[in-house]
Amino acid sequence: MIKTNDNNDMTNHTGNHTGISIESFLLAGERIDDLERNGYKIIQHKEKFCFGMDAVLLSGFARVLENETVLDLGTGTGIIPILLEAKTLGAHFTGLEVQEQSADMARRSVMINGLESKIDIVTGDIKEVDKIFKKASFDVVISNPPYMNDNHGIKNPNLPKAIARHEILCTLDDVVKSAMVMLRPGGRFYMVHRPHRLSEIIVKLKEYRLEPKRIKFVHPFAEKEANMVLIESVRGGKSMIKVESPLIVYESEGCYTEEIHRIYGF
Amino acid sequence: MIKTNDNNDMTNHTGNHTGISIESFLLAGERIDDLERNGYKIIQHKEKFCFGMDAVLLSGFARVLENETVLDLGTGTGIIPILLEAKTLGAHFTGLEVQEQSADMARRSVMINGLESKIDIVTGDIKEVDKIFKKASFDVVISNPPYMNDNHGIKNPNLPKAIARHEILCTLDDVVKSAMVMLRPGGRFYMVHRPHRLSEIIVKLKEYRLEPKRIKFVHPFAEKEANMVLIESVRGGKSMIKVESPLIVYESEGCYTEEIHRIYGF
Repeated sequence: MIKTNDNNDMTNHTGNHTGISIESFLLAGERIDDLERNGYKIIQHKEKFCFGMDAVLLSGFARVLENETVLDLGTGTGIIPILLEAKTLGAHFTGLEVQEQSADMARRSVMINGLESKIDIVTGDIKEVDKIFKKASFDVVISNPPYMNDNHGIKNPNLPKAIARHEILCTLDDVVKSAMVMLRPGGRFYMVHRPHRLSEIIVKLKEYRLEPKRIKFVHPFAEKEANMVLIESVRGGKSMIKVESPLIVYESEGCYTEEIHRIYGF
Repeated sequence: MIKTNDNNDMTNHTGNHTGISIESFLLAGERIDDLERNGYKIIQHKEKFCFGMDAVLLSGFARVLENETVLDLGTGTGIIPILLEAKTLGAHFTGLEVQEQSADMARRSVMINGLESKIDIVTGDIKEVDKIFKKASFDVVISNPPYMNDNHGIKNPNLPKAIARHEILCTLDDVVKSAMVMLRPGGRFYMVHRPHRLSEIIVKLKEYRLEPKRIKFVHPFAEKEANMVLIESVRGGKSMIKVESPLIVYESEGCYTEEIHRIYGF
C-alpha cells in the first residue's frame, strides 16, 4: 500500500521542491513513504511511532467541508493533516504535536509536499491549546489519541512510541476537553479509539457537550469483534446517534475488502 | 419462519395438554403461532403488539446459565421467557407485564406449552418491581422495552401497541433502574434497543452501575446502518466493552443470513 524509500537509497528522487533531493530532508534513521495520493510523501522514523491504518481510516471517516479549518490534536508524523489536505477542500490544517522531534519531522513532510501554505505544524501540549490558539476558532477538530490507560509496565515512559500509545502526557479527558475548547459551536470532532473504552468515551464526550452523532466500528474480519471505533461528535448537538455500516478490513487472510481499497485510494 | 393458526382454523390441533383443543385457549381475535422450537406455540392478538425479530435476537444474545433465574421486564406475549426456557438450562423464568389482557394471553401461552412450573407471568408495573419481588433476587434481567420517547402524535396512548412501543407507562430510566434493583451483584442485564439512543442508554446504564460489557449491532444489510442494538451489562462490573461482530439480517432481499437462520433455530 505504501512504498518506502530509506535514506540510504541513493537514487535521486525529487519532490515538489524541484532540483532538491528529497533525501536531503531526512535525518538519521528516517525514511520516506509514498502515500499514493496526490503524489504526497511522508517522513517516518523506524524507532518512533509510525502511522497506522487508524489514521488513514479516521481521515476517510472525517468530513471537512469547503473552506473549513481543521486542528489535529497530537499529529505525530503529520499524516492526518496531509491526508485531509489531499482528500478535502478544507481551507487550512493545523497539526499540534508535543514532541519536538516528531513536530520537526512532520514540518519537513509538509515541506517536501510543498504544503507550507495549507498546513501548519505547531509544537505544543494538548493541555494548553487555549494558550496556543484562539478558543472556538476551528470548524473541525480531529484526533488519533493514545489508546491505553494502563500505564503499568511501560519500560521507558519517555520513549516516543510509549507517549503516542499510552496516556502518559495526555488523557482521554484532556483530548476531549481540548477539542471542546477549540471548536466553534456546531463544530465537529472526529476521533478514532478502541471499542473497549466506548462507554467511557461516550460519557466523556457528553460531559463536554460534544454529542456523539455518527459511529462506525471497524472489524478486522466480518465475524470478529471490533478493534477500532470512529466517532463524529458535534459541539452542542442533540442526542441522536447513527451507527453506520460496519467497516470490515479483510475479505480473507491478507486480502483487503473493497471499502478499504476505496479509503486508501487505490 | 413462524406458522400461524387462526382461531377460525377448525382442524383439531392438540398441544401438550393432551386431548384439549388448543383453540379452546384462544379468545376472539387471537391466533396461535408455532415457534418451531421444542414444539412450543405462542398466542398473539392481531390488534395488539406482536413479537418481532427484536425479541428473538435478544433471546439469542442473552446468556442464561444452568439453574439461573430470569426476570423479563415487560414480557408482552411472553415470547422471551418461552424462548429462553427452550434454549437454556435456566431454573425459572418470570415475565412481568402491566397490561392484564397481555399477561392473561401470555399465561395461556405458558399453559398450552405445559410450562407452568418453569414460567410465571406476573401482572404488575415495572416501576413497582421492588414491591412485587424480593430485591437483588434474580441472576438475569432482560427487557425489550418501548423504544420511542417522542410521544407526540400518538392518537390513543391507551392502545396496547402504543404502550409497547412508546415510553408511555415506563421510560428507559424506569427499565434500567428496575433491572438494577432486581439483579444480584454481578448479575446480568440484557436489553435490545434502537442505536440512535445509544449514548443515552450507556449513560443511563452507568448511572445505575450496570456496566455495559458486550454490545452487538444488528444491520438489516451489511452496507446499511444499524437498526437494533443488543447490550449485556453487569451489575457492578468494570468498564470494558466488547463490540461483537455485527449481526446482518439479510444476505440479499428476502433472504436471511446464516446467522439469522441459526438464531431462529432452523
